[in-house]
Amino acid sequence: MRHNLLRGRGHAGPKLKLGAYKTAGFVAAAAVALAACLLAGCARGPETTTPKGTILDMTFPYDDSTIYWPNAKPFKLTKGAWGVNDKGYWYAANEYSAAEHGGTHADAPIHFGRNGRTIDQVPLEEWIGPAARINVTAKCEKDRDYLLQVDDIRQWEATYGPLPAKAWVIMYTGIDTKYYPDKKRILGTDVSGEAAIPYLSFPGFSPQAVEFLLKQRDITGLALDTPSIDYGKSQDFKVHQILLGANRLALENIAHLDKLPDIGATLYVIPMMIGQGTGAPARVFAVLP
Amino acid sequence: MRHNLLRGRGHAGPKLKLGAYKTAGFVAAAAVALAACLLAGCARGPETTTPKGTILDMTFPYDDSTIYWPNAKPFKLTKGAWGVNDKGYWYAANEYSAAEHGGTHADAPIHFGRNGRTIDQVPLEEWIGPAARINVTAKCEKDRDYLLQVDDIRQWEATYGPLPAKAWVIMYTGIDTKYYPDKKRILGTDVSGEAAIPYLSFPGFSPQAVEFLLKQRDITGLALDTPSIDYGKSQDFKVHQILLGANRLALENIAHLDKLPDIGATLYVIPMMIGQGTGAPARVFAVLP
Repeated sequence: MRHNLLRGRGHAGPKLKLGAYKTAGFVAAAAVALAACLLAGCARGPETTTPKGTILDMTFPYDDSTIYWPNAKPFKLTKGAWGVNDKGYWYAANEYSAAEHGGTHADAPIHFGRNGRTIDQVPLEEWIGPAARINVTAKCEKDRDYLLQVDDIRQWEATYGPLPAKAWVIMYTGIDTKYYPDKKRILGTDVSGEAAIPYLSFPGFSPQAVEFLLKQRDITGLALDTPSIDYGKSQDFKVHQILLGANRLALENIAHLDKLPDIGATLYVIPMMIGQGTGAPARVFAVLP
Repeated sequence: MRHNLLRGRGHAGPKLKLGAYKTAGFVAAAAVALAACLLAGCARGPETTTPKGTILDMTFPYDDSTIYWPNAKPFKLTKGAWGVNDKGYWYAANEYSAAEHGGTHADAPIHFGRNGRTIDQVPLEEWIGPAARINVTAKCEKDRDYLLQVDDIRQWEATYGPLPAKAWVIMYTGIDTKYYPDKKRILGTDVSGEAAIPYLSFPGFSPQAVEFLLKQRDITGLALDTPSIDYGKSQDFKVHQILLGANRLALENIAHLDKLPDIGATLYVIPMMIGQGTGAPARVFAVLP
């Protein structure tokens, strides 16, 4: 899972000489970059958008266990050919189908914003930004219906300084991180269909926190390790309405939040390019500091 | 579409000071990195895996026009809710379905390799590598059934030096680049279903070129701007068999190859995380030198 973007992967066999050369170059470059950083006064820690680090895949796979809203069409893989064919060689291929909003997926502004952009209308670069992880696992452990408060953001800033510009603000609830893909422990119920809706229970962002972020900070979007940026008991999906209405982005069911630092990583949210998509499966990764 | 990974996007309003500070740091770091590069003897041009450049999205959208094999299930978007609901707020969501191998998509080794890995078994970092674009557009213009030869690779190396380790070897045919999504001009036929197969006609890699790359070079995989790494007239899909049988990767229907330099970019092939996938829609981008 670990990959150094500057060096590329290991250079084996006939490329060993070139590999050693490149490694030497990298070490030299890294040393001088560090010196430059010191000269420029990088006192706050690693430059958050320098992808000099290793890659952390933060995506849950799409399969029978993928978490969807209880009344949404789940992911289905239909195996086609899968074996040696009449010409004597191995061939395997599948078909797939699903609702847009399940598993590790992105929300486009159109999802809750009448004039919002669709997935294919958001430039790829806009999905990439510095990751600010706000750890509220202890509060969510005590209260499954916890709402992230403005004070949680202020507390993060008291420790790390102002939120970086264009930040992905990530609420680390612990729910998916600990329980995925256990439906009962994630959604609060393992009932299927409409009947499940009254029993939904998991934490989310408060509308006040989102208003604060939109008015007083400069963010790319909101992400968290639950199925929805609005908490399970929400009736009106205010957080979706406010955030997507402001043409910003969302990311739900992000994986491996326990391995992401609170600050310093860059988040790459890379959605499938669905024309007119209101959302899409996303392959999400962080480049660690 | 353009994004400088080192600087992040523009820092506006209250972040202006930090933005200017970061820019100064970037310029300083770039200058010293350049000096380090000169010291280390980087005579061959830009370091291919340094993501200091801008992002080029190389993905065609999934919609009604997406190019599939004539007998494969095409992409279908089914609109669900799309309007103001009974609670008074806007809500839009879709479902989607398709075969794995259409549009801008990745092949996992299992597709033609009996013991090969599925999409979810290939680590994300393995999909990222230096891009080597071999421009054979003139030859493909003269011959729709052109096969990339070992000599085309040698000619590229005579100009640019040895292929970088872990390269994505990209055959630039011009077919998708000029004609996408015109079925007739891409596939050679606009007939649907099995009846179309005998009329398929487009260029691809030769089995000899793939054998050469696997035995004498160190590659990540093969990519091109047609629907298949095997040419349209192939009966036995030898290139797929050889490449995927060797546990390497493939990428088909890559977009905007005219905007990719022959050397110096890093290719990010980011597939949807399909459990047991033999292939998957991929969001593909290059970080330009």
